[in-house]
Amino acid sequence: MEKKNLQYLAALRETMKKHNIDACVITGTDPHQSELPPRHWRGREWLTGFESGNGTNGTAVVLQDDALCWTDSRYFIQAEEQLKGTGFRMMKEDGPDAVDLVDWLTEHTKAGQTVGIDGMTFSISFAQRLEQELGDNGVNLNTDFPQFDYIYPDRPERPKNKLFIHDEKIVGESVESKIGRVLTEVKAELANSIILSALDDIAWITNLRTAGDIAFSPIFVSYLYLSPEQRVLFVDADKLTPEVEEHLKKYSIDVRPYDSVLEFVAALPKENRLLMDPEKTSRALYDHVGCTPVFGGAGVARLKSIKNDTMLSNLAIAMEKDGVALTRFFMMVEKEYPTGKLTEVELGKRLRALRLADPSCVDESFSPILGWNGHGAIVHYEATEETDVAIEGEGLLLVDSGGQYVYGTTDITRTVALGTPTDEQRHDFTLVMKGHIALARAKFPAGTRGSQLDVLARQFLWNEGKAYYHGTGHGVGFFINCHEGPQNIRLNENPTALEPGMITSNEPGLYLEGRYGIRCENLVVTEPWETTDFGQFLKFETMTLFPFDLNLFETKIMTDEEIAWVNDYHKLVYSRLSPLLEAEEVAWLKEKTRELTR
Amino acid sequence: MEKKNLQYLAALRETMKKHNIDACVITGTDPHQSELPPRHWRGREWLTGFESGNGTNGTAVVLQDDALCWTDSRYFIQAEEQLKGTGFRMMKEDGPDAVDLVDWLTEHTKAGQTVGIDGMTFSISFAQRLEQELGDNGVNLNTDFPQFDYIYPDRPERPKNKLFIHDEKIVGESVESKIGRVLTEVKAELANSIILSALDDIAWITNLRTAGDIAFSPIFVSYLYLSPEQRVLFVDADKLTPEVEEHLKKYSIDVRPYDSVLEFVAALPKENRLLMDPEKTSRALYDHVGCTPVFGGAGVARLKSIKNDTMLSNLAIAMEKDGVALTRFFMMVEKEYPTGKLTEVELGKRLRALRLADPSCVDESFSPILGWNGHGAIVHYEATEETDVAIEGEGLLLVDSGGQYVYGTTDITRTVALGTPTDEQRHDFTLVMKGHIALARAKFPAGTRGSQLDVLARQFLWNEGKAYYHGTGHGVGFFINCHEGPQNIRLNENPTALEPGMITSNEPGLYLEGRYGIRCENLVVTEPWETTDFGQFLKFETMTLFPFDLNLFETKIMTDEEIAWVNDYHKLVYSRLSPLLEAEEVAWLKEKTRELTR
Repeated sequence: MEKKNLQYLAALRETMKKHNIDACVITGTDPHQSELPPRHWRGREWLTGFESGNGTNGTAVVLQDDALCWTDSRYFIQAEEQLKGTGFRMMKEDGPDAVDLVDWLTEHTKAGQTVGIDGMTFSISFAQRLEQELGDNGVNLNTDFPQFDYIYPDRPERPKNKLFIHDEKIVGESVESKIGRVLTEVKAELANSIILSALDDIAWITNLRTAGDIAFSPIFVSYLYLSPEQRVLFVDADKLTPEVEEHLKKYSIDVRPYDSVLEFVAALPKENRLLMDPEKTSRALYDHVGCTPVFGGAGVARLKSIKNDTMLSNLAIAMEKDGVALTRFFMMVEKEYPTGKLTEVELGKRLRALRLADPSCVDESFSPILGWNGHGAIVHYEATEETDVAIEGEGLLLVDSGGQYVYGTTDITRTVALGTPTDEQRHDFTLVMKGHIALARAKFPAGTRGSQLDVLARQFLWNEGKAYYHGTGHGVGFFINCHEGPQNIRLNENPTALEPGMITSNEPGLYLEGRYGIRCENLVVTEPWETTDFGQFLKFETMTLFPFDLNLFETKIMTDEEIAWVNDYHKLVYSRLSPLLEAEEVAWLKEKTRELTR
Repeated sequence: MEKKNLQYLAALRETMKKHNIDACVITGTDPHQSELPPRHWRGREWLTGFESGNGTNGTAVVLQDDALCWTDSRYFIQAEEQLKGTGFRMMKEDGPDAVDLVDWLTEHTKAGQTVGIDGMTFSISFAQRLEQELGDNGVNLNTDFPQFDYIYPDRPERPKNKLFIHDEKIVGESVESKIGRVLTEVKAELANSIILSALDDIAWITNLRTAGDIAFSPIFVSYLYLSPEQRVLFVDADKLTPEVEEHLKKYSIDVRPYDSVLEFVAALPKENRLLMDPEKTSRALYDHVGCTPVFGGAGVARLKSIKNDTMLSNLAIAMEKDGVALTRFFMMVEKEYPTGKLTEVELGKRLRALRLADPSCVDESFSPILGWNGHGAIVHYEATEETDVAIEGEGLLLVDSGGQYVYGTTDITRTVALGTPTDEQRHDFTLVMKGHIALARAKFPAGTRGSQLDVLARQFLWNEGKAYYHGTGHGVGFFINCHEGPQNIRLNENPTALEPGMITSNEPGLYLEGRYGIRCENLVVTEPWETTDFGQFLKFETMTLFPFDLNLFETKIMTDEEIAWVNDYHKLVYSRLSPLLEAEEVAWLKEKTRELTR
């Protein structure tokens, strides 16, 4: 079976010859290092035919006599299948047969040869590593090879969605104040100005959002330049509305065409010290700067991660709305499950509809994971028409989902038993919950990092020789990306301290291949606790509002404090959600939040 | 009050002029970066008059118009006192008024000036940092200014203690095998040879020891060069005995004069790629190498840290001997305490005598900490004639001590109540013990780092707004240094995984200034636990043998598992120690290991 991709590949090889490029590397991301880039920048998918759900995954390497596409273990089976007949072969990024792309490229190029990349879609850091390792072997890197400009005639346009204002009453801080704080960071890093590429940073600073540019996040395609003298938003003019133009004018933010950013930075005077984050800024931008680049600016992500009291009060509203949608969803599941007609895909549609029924919910916050029994054990499972199964028999249903409410972003996982759970399922669920509770109840000195607390969530599983391999918690944005930095709670070291106002997930799990998966996830906010002779201590406050399945607790392995935590949490859930529900729903929730006893 | 140090300082300044040195930096360590350097290398103490217990602490900077000595918060009061009338003023290395030495030096030197150091007593890393930061300002670094060769007429000689063989039956591995394993590491780092400077690494590889070179550790002053073709020990000839010469010959290790190491490395051919650890090797050695230096070699410390089964069996013997000495010590304390005549200093002498009564104990493993009430709250307290207090009234006695047995190194802390402890003391002690027990019982996947487990020992204190600031655990050598790397259990990140055979301390504590200190320390060995579907899991096994004070437990805040852990441990202590004790001692120990009940 031959596919059109063979023609695309042939065209690329011709173009490479014309431009004296011996090898070409193509990433799956955009000039903003987005996790889910718009169609316009999904040339790697178009070229190779391999479409990871996450557009970023998949990096292609093309030579005259070989063509490869790297991906990670989540996609091995799918990529192998989709790459058939495309001229590309799959390479593994992780696992026992992993091959490092840069190492491979170094071995398959010779001194004097040239590797070409589109500098717009490589971060400064990645390009630098590539340049250095190739350079050690006498191989050149040409960072100005925008391959899809030559060979992709039907390339989708950039998204044209209109921007709207994220109400200052909801975010609790003016654009002026945010710009002031960013410029203070700029000064602290001994720079005069900053160029921002990360779309979530820009949306946060400008209090602007859109729908549709990036899947599952209301951020928009743009760049932002800030200095004490000048503020420029680089954005396609057709995304603006009179209201947004007014808003930008109010904060003295000039608008320039999105495409003009390179000539803008090229024209900056030498004495301007321009801050750019090497992980988030494109190599092309760096190649063009006429002024003095200063690497740094990670402080902006930290500012964004700390939510003010207004945001937290509004997030509490989003959590209530989410709890209402989930109440309706799980009531429906219980009612319709005996028919045997529900499937994972159907559940996904129903859940989406229930969330979006609230006018303040503009989208889901990620592609939901609905996994029945064995599918729940696939950590990044996405139900499709091909994989879909009916929810029948007995077992565990894992539901990991969230919404983009204008009041904040939600992300919650519940694992529920349909039919009678086994003792083993109850035992495993309780081990996961003991970890969840230990983390939720933790107190810790200011300055503590997430990696230090991570073991609290894992200890009970480890004590029985069980484990999960994903992080325990990720940062969560506020009506921006559902995954954001800089903090997290992971096995791997991350030097970022957990600070008051940061929202992080608490999601330990356990996955038994082919049998069932368990994950219990709430979002928590870091808060001040008390100041003692030993300094300032912090704690977590749980924001998410929905009960855990009481049928899955094995109380005999729980302490009194753990049982009390569950009961206190369930009392809170009931008191917050019940005023928003219909009578029948209130009765259902009352039953689901009944007291847990030994 | 003027001191002789003023004359020394004047002499140094004259010498500096003669050698065109504008500023001079003097460390407190030796060419081996030892923690407790021999007298020969304590010129910084001689010059400044500030004698930290730990010779390494204290770094002097001398200019024509200023002279300073940096130290850390443990020594602020003492240094301030001792530096009076010496011409030096104290600078703070930590705390709110800390000043960075390199920053200070950069600000107080001008382009074109020269800073001089004795390259023998600076690690490659430290000298490089200094060179770079000074160089950025146009200041030169002269690394060949051995100031004490010019101005220290009565400088003590290098130690002349005789070496002896650490029996292969005790260490369970031949020198041949160790050299083979080290050379495998050398090859893995793409080098041909290695020069070792760290004295504990050399003692470990050669199975040689001495007594007296370095306080509290049986290591000896030397360098070791190893390649597949040549093995050279650089050591003063008067340290050898016929037996040791025979031993070295057996393993084809040539002996050369200690002082000849620089000319040796200078003569190595260019194609020889010589591995050197930049943290442990002197800048002078690096300055002299004629071959190609390769930075690395941290793997040697890892090999040394992993104890084989023979070592572990012998360490068990050392632990029994230590337990016997401690039994006799604490029996004596109980008996004599009512007289009111015991003091901290006296207790130190008695404890030392009891340990050294065993012929296999050649020294203590560090300067013991004996702190009564408020003194126990000073983490690095050392009782002296000036600070000494009588053990009278009621309170807590903290005893942190250890022995260098040929069967292994011990390090144990016990906190005991004399008289009736208060409820607060019992509560705090129990919080510390709950942390100790949580760490002792931990199970964890292979690959886990100490920093990940550290919170297990702190969580119960944190939950009440209490904390300690030192590490929870350090690596412990085998009849070598009581502190060794690469692993530890600390708040700070350390990328080293805990591996089977590593010995680490487990020593949480709590310190209430002016009132009392609590620390509970055992040594634990990392062991394989079980392999499950989730991989290989590890656990700790406690090696130290001595009861915790049963009068200090508040059982109502303990879980059944925690109480069971104490009782199991105490049963083990009794069964292991009682066969080695006199009848009266057995009875005492029986009482001290009675069952803990609610």
